[in-house]
Amino acid sequence: MTDYFLNRASVRTFTDKEVEPELLDSILTRAAKAPTTGNMQLYSVIVSRNPEMRSRLAETHFNQPASKAPVILTICADFNRFTRWCELRKADAGFDNFLSFTSAMADAIIFAQQVVTVAEQEGLGTCYLGTVTYNAREISEILELPELVVPVACLAIGWPAAEGAPSERLLNSGFVHQEKYRKDSDEEILDIFKIKEDYPANAAFAAENNKENLAQVFAEVRYPRGMNEDFSVRFLELLKQKRFI
Amino acid sequence: MTDYFLNRASVRTFTDKEVEPELLDSILTRAAKAPTTGNMQLYSVIVSRNPEMRSRLAETHFNQPASKAPVILTICADFNRFTRWCELRKADAGFDNFLSFTSAMADAIIFAQQVVTVAEQEGLGTCYLGTVTYNAREISEILELPELVVPVACLAIGWPAAEGAPSERLLNSGFVHQEKYRKDSDEEILDIFKIKEDYPANAAFAAENNKENLAQVFAEVRYPRGMNEDFSVRFLELLKQKRFI
Repeated sequence: MTDYFLNRASVRTFTDKEVEPELLDSILTRAAKAPTTGNMQLYSVIVSRNPEMRSRLAETHFNQPASKAPVILTICADFNRFTRWCELRKADAGFDNFLSFTSAMADAIIFAQQVVTVAEQEGLGTCYLGTVTYNAREISEILELPELVVPVACLAIGWPAAEGAPSERLLNSGFVHQEKYRKDSDEEILDIFKIKEDYPANAAFAAENNKENLAQVFAEVRYPRGMNEDFSVRFLELLKQKRFI
Repeated sequence: MTDYFLNRASVRTFTDKEVEPELLDSILTRAAKAPTTGNMQLYSVIVSRNPEMRSRLAETHFNQPASKAPVILTICADFNRFTRWCELRKADAGFDNFLSFTSAMADAIIFAQQVVTVAEQEGLGTCYLGTVTYNAREISEILELPELVVPVACLAIGWPAAEGAPSERLLNSGFVHQEKYRKDSDEEILDIFKIKEDYPANAAFAAENNKENLAQVFAEVRYPRGMNEDFSVRFLELLKQKRFI
């Protein structure tokens, strides 16, 4: 048990072996026992197996390697189903607002992470596609998502073609605070990130990208300001279109 | 393993027995191996053990029973630490935007859920306090959260005084869609929620609240429109204050 959590790693390449529908169904059943806001289960999952659908989705994820997995799960914050039920029961459903979106997003991510844990313990490989919020509008169109349904997590799932390598992580002292948020000095901040800067693969990463250091790779190559700002506008527009703002 | 996931339940009452710091530390270390956006670990956790601090936090959670736990973890979307590191390394950090908030919120919730799974498998009881986004500004003041840090998950943790009761959940067919989002008819929607409406504890719940049915309890008593809208405005204001919008 301890070993699983300490040694787990995301997997980005998969074999052609089928993820049996019965196994996936059993994973989703177990994952649905994860906590959920007021037991409302404010999420939906769209299972993509069809090659053409997966290819269209992969494009929205910039065709990153993991997007070629045999199964793609798009997990959505969903207040549509719950709202329709309320309306049918003559209840005044007031969930077309941002607070409700954050509750549904939390539910969806909790569920997604439980899918990861259960699936990995079955020997499957998984990887989040963090790009899900970037092209959320296009994903929304491909999957025909209605009002009050917004994709917030995407998982690639399959049988591993190669083991994932566990990633280095910050020491607890870097992200755990006692009683109040600690005000770290500049030196302390640099000390927290030393573990990442010293990691051999990361040092090579800076050189490959013609940057001086790892922070510049993150801020200027992988997650540049212009891209973040552009996709922020688009995601907020989608939230408006879906009536969450 | 299968049994744990199928039978887990949140716990809302705790004994006075201490949650040993070494155990909590080991849980947080294991949970930090959960997936995270680009391995950036965009979260922080504030550990509250001090009785006065816990009492102040409990107020922001409307003094719900679980808020009296011996340990309260407030888990925050945090781009402050990462941004400071980038600045110190002369990297142009562009994370003061909504897309970055959603990435950090996803990271924080994934981490929170991994804490739940690891802690429960150690025999601890846990419960999310979904109220964390309601009074996020007050929580932010109590914990002295800086810019680009916003609380998005709160966990009550302790040794169970009573076992939690597993909750009823929708059948997979209610929330799983194949290839595209399925357009359910009114009859199908009612059928999906039948499992909740027929659940004995839920039927009693409607009568206790002087409502005709369960949907009205959710929409008009527990999560009424006015409350959702009021807290939406306040949470959006906090995101602006913390520079995420």
